Amino acid sequence: MKSTERVRQILSWYPSDNPGTLTNLARLLNHGTLAGTGKLVILPVDQGFEHGPARSFAPNPAAYDPDYHFQLAIDAGCNAYAAPLGFLEAGAAKFAGQVPLILKLNNSDSLAKLEPCSAVTGSVKDALRLGCSAIGFTIYPGSSARNTMYEEIREMILEAKASGLATVIWSYPRGSNLAKDGEQAIDVTAYAAQIACQLGAHVVKVKPPKDIIYQDEAKKVFEKYAIPTKTLADRVRHVVQSSFNGKRVVIFSGGEAKDTPAILDEIKQIAAGGGFGSIMGRNSFQRPRDEALKLLGDVMNIFKNA
Amino acid sequence: MKSTERVRQILSWYPSDNPGTLTNLARLLNHGTLAGTGKLVILPVDQGFEHGPARSFAPNPAAYDPDYHFQLAIDAGCNAYAAPLGFLEAGAAKFAGQVPLILKLNNSDSLAKLEPCSAVTGSVKDALRLGCSAIGFTIYPGSSARNTMYEEIREMILEAKASGLATVIWSYPRGSNLAKDGEQAIDVTAYAAQIACQLGAHVVKVKPPKDIIYQDEAKKVFEKYAIPTKTLADRVRHVVQSSFNGKRVVIFSGGEAKDTPAILDEIKQIAAGGGFGSIMGRNSFQRPRDEALKLLGDVMNIFKNA
Amino acid sequence: MKSTERVRQILSWYPSDNPGTLTNLARLLNHGTLAGTGKLVILPVDQGFEHGPARSFAPNPAAYDPDYHFQLAIDAGCNAYAAPLGFLEAGAAKFAGQVPLILKLNNSDSLAKLEPCSAVTGSVKDALRLGCSAIGFTIYPGSSARNTMYEEIREMILEAKASGLATVIWSYPRGSNLAKDGEQAIDVTAYAAQIACQLGAHVVKVKPPKDIIYQDEAKKVFEKYAIPTKTLADRVRHVVQSSFNGKRVVIFSGGEAKDTPAILDEIKQIAAGGGFGSIMGRNSFQRPRDEALKLLGDVMNIFKNA
Amino acid sequence: MKSTERVRQILSWYPSDNPGTLTNLARLLNHGTLAGTGKLVILPVDQGFEHGPARSFAPNPAAYDPDYHFQLAIDAGCNAYAAPLGFLEAGAAKFAGQVPLILKLNNSDSLAKLEPCSAVTGSVKDALRLGCSAIGFTIYPGSSARNTMYEEIREMILEAKASGLATVIWSYPRGSNLAKDGEQAIDVTAYAAQIACQLGAHVVKVKPPKDIIYQDEAKKVFEKYAIPTKTLADRVRHVVQSSFNGKRVVIFSGGEAKDTPAILDEIKQIAAGGGFGSIMGRNSFQRPRDEALKLLGDVMNIFKNA
Amino acid sequence: MKSTERVRQILSWYPSDNPGTLTNLARLLNHGTLAGTGKLVILPVDQGFEHGPARSFAPNPAAYDPDYHFQLAIDAGCNAYAAPLGFLEAGAAKFAGQVPLILKLNNSDSLAKLEPCSAVTGSVKDALRLGCSAIGFTIYPGSSARNTMYEEIREMILEAKASGLATVIWSYPRGSNLAKDGEQAIDVTAYAAQIACQLGAHVVKVKPPKDIIYQDEAKKVFEKYAIPTKTLADRVRHVVQSSFNGKRVVIFSGGEAKDTPAILDEIKQIAAGGGFGSIMGRNSFQRPRDEALKLLGDVMNIFKNA
Repeated sequence: MKSTERVRQILSWYPSDNPGTLTNLARLLNHGTLAGTGKLVILPVDQGFEHGPARSFAPNPAAYDPDYHFQLAIDAGCNAYAAPLGFLEAGAAKFAGQVPLILKLNNSDSLAKLEPCSAVTGSVKDALRLGCSAIGFTIYPGSSARNTMYEEIREMILEAKASGLATVIWSYPRGSNLAKDGEQAIDVTAYAAQIACQLGAHVVKVKPPKDIIYQDEAKKVFEKYAIPTKTLADRVRHVVQSSFNGKRVVIFSGGEAKDTPAILDEIKQIAAGGGFGSIMGRNSFQRPRDEALKLLGDVMNIFKNA
Repeated sequence: MKSTERVRQILSWYPSDNPGTLTNLARLLNHGTLAGTGKLVILPVDQGFEHGPARSFAPNPAAYDPDYHFQLAIDAGCNAYAAPLGFLEAGAAKFAGQVPLILKLNNSDSLAKLEPCSAVTGSVKDALRLGCSAIGFTIYPGSSARNTMYEEIREMILEAKASGLATVIWSYPRGSNLAKDGEQAIDVTAYAAQIACQLGAHVVKVKPPKDIIYQDEAKKVFEKYAIPTKTLADRVRHVVQSSFNGKRVVIFSGGEAKDTPAILDEIKQIAAGGGFGSIMGRNSFQRPRDEALKLLGDVMNIFKNA
Repeated sequence: MKSTERVRQILSWYPSDNPGTLTNLARLLNHGTLAGTGKLVILPVDQGFEHGPARSFAPNPAAYDPDYHFQLAIDAGCNAYAAPLGFLEAGAAKFAGQVPLILKLNNSDSLAKLEPCSAVTGSVKDALRLGCSAIGFTIYPGSSARNTMYEEIREMILEAKASGLATVIWSYPRGSNLAKDGEQAIDVTAYAAQIACQLGAHVVKVKPPKDIIYQDEAKKVFEKYAIPTKTLADRVRHVVQSSFNGKRVVIFSGGEAKDTPAILDEIKQIAAGGGFGSIMGRNSFQRPRDEALKLLGDVMNIFKNA
Repeated sequence: MKSTERVRQILSWYPSDNPGTLTNLARLLNHGTLAGTGKLVILPVDQGFEHGPARSFAPNPAAYDPDYHFQLAIDAGCNAYAAPLGFLEAGAAKFAGQVPLILKLNNSDSLAKLEPCSAVTGSVKDALRLGCSAIGFTIYPGSSARNTMYEEIREMILEAKASGLATVIWSYPRGSNLAKDGEQAIDVTAYAAQIACQLGAHVVKVKPPKDIIYQDEAKKVFEKYAIPTKTLADRVRHVVQSSFNGKRVVIFSGGEAKDTPAILDEIKQIAAGGGFGSIMGRNSFQRPRDEALKLLGDVMNIFKNA
Repeated sequence: MKSTERVRQILSWYPSDNPGTLTNLARLLNHGTLAGTGKLVILPVDQGFEHGPARSFAPNPAAYDPDYHFQLAIDAGCNAYAAPLGFLEAGAAKFAGQVPLILKLNNSDSLAKLEPCSAVTGSVKDALRLGCSAIGFTIYPGSSARNTMYEEIREMILEAKASGLATVIWSYPRGSNLAKDGEQAIDVTAYAAQIACQLGAHVVKVKPPKDIIYQDEAKKVFEKYAIPTKTLADRVRHVVQSSFNGKRVVIFSGGEAKDTPAILDEIKQIAAGGGFGSIMGRNSFQRPRDEALKLLGDVMNIFKNA
């Protein structure tokens, strides 16, 4: 489709990237219900790897099947579908060209309790042979294994950009250096977004930040400059500003499954704060398909009208 | 977009290809006015390289500008735009994601009178960094330099397939082994299509065959089995059958510029014979833009209703 | 042999793979007594490496000889024979083409008590020069060395797939993060199967799961959704469902040597639960040859009639 | 299947080859109606490339379809099916594992009248990704482009052997250095077989030699040592002896289409002379399917009873 | 020289190896006093690296000179001389072709007290340029650095085999996972031999095993199956059986310097148990030359008459 004024504006923020990467960014932005709006709703399904099959799929057993998620992403009008190697290999041929794909290149399971550091489980070559528009990679700022992850993505992002792919970084503060309540603190979340941007991400995914300021040095600054953090919209606004003054696409995950009004409320705040969209896994594929389609439609509507 | 039954059928003819290549084939088939019909109209602009600028662009000086052709392909609803490296580099970022691109990897000029053999002027890596869906390559069966060309495409097609790209082969019989009237003879054209298919092409482009049977051994067979060659539709049908029994996408070039009724007549015959589409360069970009849009629209209509 | 409907169905689950890999998968499925049934019984002999020679071969000293196992696999009508480099090198020429081979690419000995992580002891190039149909690789989910293993198989599976080989992943939860009773818990086993599938395995091998739910978060889900785990058949069914809804080939190891009725009983449960077969090492090669042939025959009969 | 005494004997002639190559040789020898006899009947379909589509397929239009030939080779019980890249890519996934494949790595068309030298149109990597058991390559001893061809196969045969593939060389004397009647002369044919063996071929394909001695120096020797050349059986015997004293597999092509009794007569002579089999293209796929199956069955019977 | 029946039998155990590797194995077996007997006595001089110069060479200062060892190996009629890079570089030209050479590719010094893991100090390319017949490599099963060593030899053995070289693995159990008395226990030694064989070694070198059974699981098996371990001959017999049922060449080191009768007694036991030979460093080069020649001659006599 022809790119809208807004999509062209977003693409203009990445002038170092080759036309291949811009093309794939445009594919993400120009697909599905939100095509052309500059907003994105992405379906991610890496929970089978991250949490195990029963925890992920028992609530809606149709979701054990890899085809299910491709079809859900397509029918819901998502901008893209993101998953690890095995899930994409299972359906990428059957659904070729019907929804942009993001190959999650590293994944973690919850059997070993390690300092957070996902294993690299796919490659840029896999992303090309599977027809993906982007690679996805998780970093855990705050982990002692930080350098391993930052250095892995350094190599992969360089190769991805040379190959004309876009890059989405999941930036989740976590690790032995961070207390639990620091993981979603507003200062830490904004910091995590900044790091992902500095690593060269085109799209950054963070968790919705909470009204906590975790680092003492940050606290002083937030107070001195009266950075508002009361509402989620305030905090999203700060995260977006922290992502190169809004010149990087920042999207927010929904986190654990919750009830529909709570989700929609959160989405409204994200949209109000200038968030570029949502990535919504468990809250969509763990619902019965009809309910998931309805919810995703409602979420997209919110972003559309934001 | 969701693939139609027809598009899924066409993709099923390429079961050796990875999902990346199928995705890019789907992109060609699912874009523009003819999206989903299994038919293609492609805008090729390699004439600047092949014939020189004035011969190519003086009739419509706007066409000196690389942007012109991207915009024409987009506005006309073409399935793809094909050009050499320089032309694609000039506009691929600006028009990122708005029309599938085909990088012509070899090109010839008409300054040197050589045994026909284009120079390789781009690479698969270029195609990736420019966001192309396919590579394009010209072979001249009948040329004494045949082996050079077949061996160049052998290496590039292997790399393209591994990288998830589709391949379009322009197969134009030509060379010192072939008299002028052999170049578009029906037997020779069908043979040229077969060669491109055997080399592994996904899409084959040939010239509309004439009612001439050039090779003596072929003449015997055409007569013995009463293969119809009277009408262009008959001949297109034979070329399509010669392309793996219709299981490869064969499209036809318009050749030199001619008047509109002649063109539309030819298109009707191609469509009636089961041709998968047209590739239309000089007949579109050498006309004023409005006329070109009108003509391309009329051509697409014919294929749509075939 | 011609592929049966069932074999064609199984191959259809791997649409991202090239025809070479599908050919080698078909070789595994179309060989031996169970040819064409979609079931597999594989003879694995890596115990010499894993447990030492006397513990492995003293019960049946003929088994010290590498030729013995090739001949046993052939005469028993197994679908394949799996072993480390040395054992395959010793017999692959003599028995060329008589039974599909799987090269175990990593192995562990029990002299060092390390955090579980096998050493890579062979390569994809070895698999090709020895005429193997597949590579085999062991991962230990739950080990702190998880990332090392997942990243080794990532590279090898990509090379194997490009070379037209199939991949079998042995997925055995183990390591300092996992208590002994967690290793064969149903939730952990299903999770281990899911991980192997997400890493891109064509065939997954796990241990028969026990009626234990190890992870607290999993326990809640198993209870809430009343996932049956009473019988081994129930548990096998859950593992198969957890393997891409039954669209990956999951086979079960027999584990330590036991008496014949106990083995056959276990096999009946595996078959009843929809397991695709068994991999049976010590229980076959540690018996006298005649008894091993009888037992393997009985096992195959159970799968044949399932 | 288990290899027969005869197959094991044949494999013992190639002791420099790794088990992978022996495995693929065994696959050729252990498949189809002649499995285990040490004889081979191979279906080759490169005529679409070599002679053009109408000349090849018009006599039996079902043969325009690539699937047709896979099915014919399977149903006829041929040992293998040989074709160029495009034809194999079209069906290798659908018929995965059902018949050994040989990828013809070089091909020639008859549009250009060049000094005989086929173009390299595929690679060993293609053979691996398509699941082939062997590569095929044509040399034209007597051509001025001899060195090009011998040097191309030198590189490809080395790579094929390292990758565990077998190699079939088509050795057809031809070129400006050879008069027409020399091409199938007994001395020249035996010489062509010797050259293919010296280049490292596992299987050599030549044309049935005629009772002509072409080279003057050869004539003296044939006379002095009274080498019999009267009957085709005599001449086949000399070619087989010339192929490392019968320790290379030499098979014979049928050449142009002819009537059934003539074919069967020729086959009887080839079998009587110790030929290892036939490669039969036009005489099979240009007949209606039923007649082709009947003829191939009769041919196999002759070899079986030889 | 012509290979004896016995040498041909030994070579037949390595059917996966190319003729180059077999040629180099034959060189080891067909050189020196024991040529053709299938027995080997090898002179290894890596003590300069492993223990330091004075500890190694002060007892017989002539041995400081690299030439000394070449000459000793030649004059004593050893099958081969094994040493690290520097020693071989010093004499390989001068003694070119006079004695088969083995390049020890990894070495350890005793300055650092590390978890046992030798450094890779040479390459297969060095072995080729120095005219070696084999590479040598030390592994320490039981070391926590096990994976590093197994993975290093994996790569080097693949390259060595492709280059036509033979491989000798020194397999010395050692490391923090193993108590001192486990290092030469019969179960551990047999296990170490098995591991070397599974890694693809042609020749395995272990220490003479002691009448200790170290692993509890092994103890049960040795008792249950009444595996004799009383005499060294018994134990050597078990190690040989554990080396692919005697189908790998296993030789024994003499260990630390001792008196002549003790040495000869040990050798008699090794020979009686079916050991293939000895590798004798300090016990030869630390004696005056005449005594060394006498001792080596006596040792060879024992093997000759075994």
